[in-house]
Amino acid sequence: MKVIKGFPSTSQDNYPLNLTTFIRHAAIVYPEREVVSRNLDGSIHRYDFGRFYERASQLAKALRELGVKPGDRVGTLDWNTHRFGELYFAIPGIGAVLLELNPRIAHHERAYVLNHSEAEFLIVAQSLMPVIEPLSEEFNDKIKALVIIRDIPNQPLETNFKHVYDYEEILSAQNRDFDWPWIDEKSAATACYTSGTTGKPKGVYNSHRALYLHTYAIGQALNISQDDVIMQIVPMFHAQGWGLFFCAPMTGAALVFPGRYTMEDPSSLVELLVQEKVTVTCGAPAIFNPMLRYIEKMEEKPDLRGLRMISGATEPPLALMKGYWELGKAQVIHAYGATETAPLVTVNHLKPSLQHLSDEEKWELKKKQGLPVTGVDVKIVGPDDKELPHDGKSVGEVLIRGPWVTGSYYNDERTAESFTDDGFWRSGDAGTINEHGYLKITDRFKDLIKSGGEWISSIDLENSIMAHEAVLEATVIGIPHPKWEERPLALVVLREEYKGKVSKEDILEFLKPRFAKWQLPDEVLFVDSIPKTSVGKFAKRVAREQFKDYYMKGE
Amino acid sequence: MKVIKGFPSTSQDNYPLNLTTFIRHAAIVYPEREVVSRNLDGSIHRYDFGRFYERASQLAKALRELGVKPGDRVGTLDWNTHRFGELYFAIPGIGAVLLELNPRIAHHERAYVLNHSEAEFLIVAQSLMPVIEPLSEEFNDKIKALVIIRDIPNQPLETNFKHVYDYEEILSAQNRDFDWPWIDEKSAATACYTSGTTGKPKGVYNSHRALYLHTYAIGQALNISQDDVIMQIVPMFHAQGWGLFFCAPMTGAALVFPGRYTMEDPSSLVELLVQEKVTVTCGAPAIFNPMLRYIEKMEEKPDLRGLRMISGATEPPLALMKGYWELGKAQVIHAYGATETAPLVTVNHLKPSLQHLSDEEKWELKKKQGLPVTGVDVKIVGPDDKELPHDGKSVGEVLIRGPWVTGSYYNDERTAESFTDDGFWRSGDAGTINEHGYLKITDRFKDLIKSGGEWISSIDLENSIMAHEAVLEATVIGIPHPKWEERPLALVVLREEYKGKVSKEDILEFLKPRFAKWQLPDEVLFVDSIPKTSVGKFAKRVAREQFKDYYMKGE
Repeated sequence: MKVIKGFPSTSQDNYPLNLTTFIRHAAIVYPEREVVSRNLDGSIHRYDFGRFYERASQLAKALRELGVKPGDRVGTLDWNTHRFGELYFAIPGIGAVLLELNPRIAHHERAYVLNHSEAEFLIVAQSLMPVIEPLSEEFNDKIKALVIIRDIPNQPLETNFKHVYDYEEILSAQNRDFDWPWIDEKSAATACYTSGTTGKPKGVYNSHRALYLHTYAIGQALNISQDDVIMQIVPMFHAQGWGLFFCAPMTGAALVFPGRYTMEDPSSLVELLVQEKVTVTCGAPAIFNPMLRYIEKMEEKPDLRGLRMISGATEPPLALMKGYWELGKAQVIHAYGATETAPLVTVNHLKPSLQHLSDEEKWELKKKQGLPVTGVDVKIVGPDDKELPHDGKSVGEVLIRGPWVTGSYYNDERTAESFTDDGFWRSGDAGTINEHGYLKITDRFKDLIKSGGEWISSIDLENSIMAHEAVLEATVIGIPHPKWEERPLALVVLREEYKGKVSKEDILEFLKPRFAKWQLPDEVLFVDSIPKTSVGKFAKRVAREQFKDYYMKGE
Repeated sequence: MKVIKGFPSTSQDNYPLNLTTFIRHAAIVYPEREVVSRNLDGSIHRYDFGRFYERASQLAKALRELGVKPGDRVGTLDWNTHRFGELYFAIPGIGAVLLELNPRIAHHERAYVLNHSEAEFLIVAQSLMPVIEPLSEEFNDKIKALVIIRDIPNQPLETNFKHVYDYEEILSAQNRDFDWPWIDEKSAATACYTSGTTGKPKGVYNSHRALYLHTYAIGQALNISQDDVIMQIVPMFHAQGWGLFFCAPMTGAALVFPGRYTMEDPSSLVELLVQEKVTVTCGAPAIFNPMLRYIEKMEEKPDLRGLRMISGATEPPLALMKGYWELGKAQVIHAYGATETAPLVTVNHLKPSLQHLSDEEKWELKKKQGLPVTGVDVKIVGPDDKELPHDGKSVGEVLIRGPWVTGSYYNDERTAESFTDDGFWRSGDAGTINEHGYLKITDRFKDLIKSGGEWISSIDLENSIMAHEAVLEATVIGIPHPKWEERPLALVVLREEYKGKVSKEDILEFLKPRFAKWQLPDEVLFVDSIPKTSVGKFAKRVAREQFKDYYMKGE
């Protein structure tokens, strides 16, 4: 990127963009604004941005005293709690890096991340110690301090780690005045490793500048203001929880941390939505779906008017979007991004010029990934990296560039193959852009099915299957076939009330109007569940492995 | 400012923040969104962001061909038109500086600005040539090209300037493809000289980075989205028109340029508000007042529901805010800033925690300058530069710092006295901050009246007088007094229907409950108008000069 210099400005261009600005703003302008956090036992912890800021100040001082220096990586493991929120400002606020450890990946992958990042400090919720304890032997000498967040009252802590400290104890040993340093805005504030569908995790180190600008971009794209109440559902160990919670201190919105929740019991999430009058949240269909099913069973339907639910990871099924709208007047808004993009890239808004569309056309449109947010460059390119037209038909790889997009992987030779010469990140997603500017992801390149020299979109197939009223969720994978190289196989989970009442033929019949005959799955298997990745995406790699011999056996 | 370095990030931190990003975004995502501009003859010019971008591209190429190089200063003079909009992106987009020339200041001041900035190019609307023609002799050899925007059809151009070009001609000679360069974000994009109440104008050179961040800040503070329609009332030659119009391409909002208008005939502004369904605009009470009076006389009151009118320069009178609310359900929102701050510093929003206030308390609150926007540091300090408490009582000088605040004046020795050691700009405004964080400007330091060793606030007095139902506008000045050093003098313009029916005693009686007797003006003079600066503020310096002997004569 060749950059030309113009006339020198008189602006304060050296004033660094630091995350600390947001909590300072909240502490000065909105100290009374509420921060709510659900404890493990279901009780609710309440304080405000004034106290949040004071505690972040105490924590920053305590971490310095433990020996955390600018540039040090500090591994973290917590549920979505107010304490995780404090960590997100205290650690970067002293120039260190908040390393997001993923509790849902395998031990050896976590070990890889710790080794690769050379983290020397850990801050872990006691309830998540089982995730890290198996690594104590390997890392005992490398970890200078392990700070425990005691989230299970009265339970003794047993660990083989040395140098163990108590979060609340080190915090309360400090007074509340802290002169936050100015951090060079190009310093890393957080580090997140991709949850790697193939190969080892790759490290994305997000700068203060990137996250600062990204927070403004989310705020703008989702129209967040002081009058909002934000609930942070997306796990904060994953791509900074999509950065939504940063918007609260930035705008003066109230903030709700739901603590630990499970897909099996989404009741606490629904309760918090209602009780705290939440207006903005974010999550994947994997969690929004069980929440909706919970709401469907509620006798008195909650009033969710004004709630915007930002939905990512996979295309939100129509039934999901319509369900929230019909039951509670809540809007599901599809957005798109990746760990590499901090993550916001597109958000689906209905443009003023499309207000004339019919209701059915509007629903169809809402499934797309949406419009690029201001500040990022998005294009689709053919195999020659030439840009393809915005015609809604040409399928190309989605390339992304911008101030909050990563430009490399930390210390990783896979960087070379992952970026274009002009600095675009190769997403590996296949998509179209239509004449109105809407991006639609049609597939992961590696999820396209190669059948007899032609491509079949597994995602088109599975989205279509999921539109069937009997289907709870479905995935389609390409597996080896003796004659056609690969052929599609559909795995379908039926809704409880339809089990045993829907056949393979019913599903294929339903698909026929939208696909050529050769594109239809050879087989439809009804299963109890579909394996998912730690962030709620279908784990196609696992499914492909499981069924790799299915079509071969028949021969 | 000592800045510490942390761990290197992998983010694309060298992706520069350029204004061009906004129009590229609009051209790709919102090419169909409308841009409306009122011609001098009252006809309406309509196109869209697609064409806007193409024309800015053509213009950029044409300017390069004329010899404009990165860093060059290009003086501009136009009304608020779409062409001025094009200039605002084309000139900075090739690395040059858009120099805002003020048509309302004296010729010798404009000459000073041209000399000080060493501008070598001029782009001027034909209808504004009388403003620049008197300088032709002095600048003929310095100006390499004068581009004329022919806004008066069929009128021959007479000028002594050499090297004259026609805007539309040079534009149409270029094709629409332009490979915009990347500009170092710390390069100046615009230059605006303060309209100097005393002394020579001071040069503020705003970087791309500053204006990029400022645009996000406005968008966030005013909650601007693609669904808005923005009308640019604040003159674009003054502090980039407060930068409001930048928000349109940034968010996808539609954009309305009202062209030339006058305080005497605000009908075109009101008509555009209604016809174009404007939802956001900005201006000073000096123009919002005559617009309201026009609306008051309309038989059918316009429906302005949802309109946010950002009001700056002076405190908006209660009658103005209530008038818009009662007649059209439009909200007047007080904001505060200065040329040196790009300009946004505070915006008055009612915080969620203050929703319980009574209507009368809410109106009172709305008069304040408001809450700091995210990203700027605002404090009030005593004579020792020590920060004063937020108690709503302590009056101190307002100091401002942040990424879009100027850090110096270009090539000007007054820089030294204008900034604190830690980088805050000294605004010269006196104000309080209350316990809820609201800034209230009580006075300009130089407008405080020194009477017998005590201070009297001229602004408190004039705001109180303006609350009288008979008063259209009023100013209070301190003028020399043989005994007390200075004493206040009130200049009052009565509403038409009250002329001759209100006396000095009536006004003083009205003030009595709120002031000590010694603070009351010695004299109240009823006048036909109050002199104003080019940006609509009361020109107290002119008034003080005019009446400087008033109390001395009496002796």
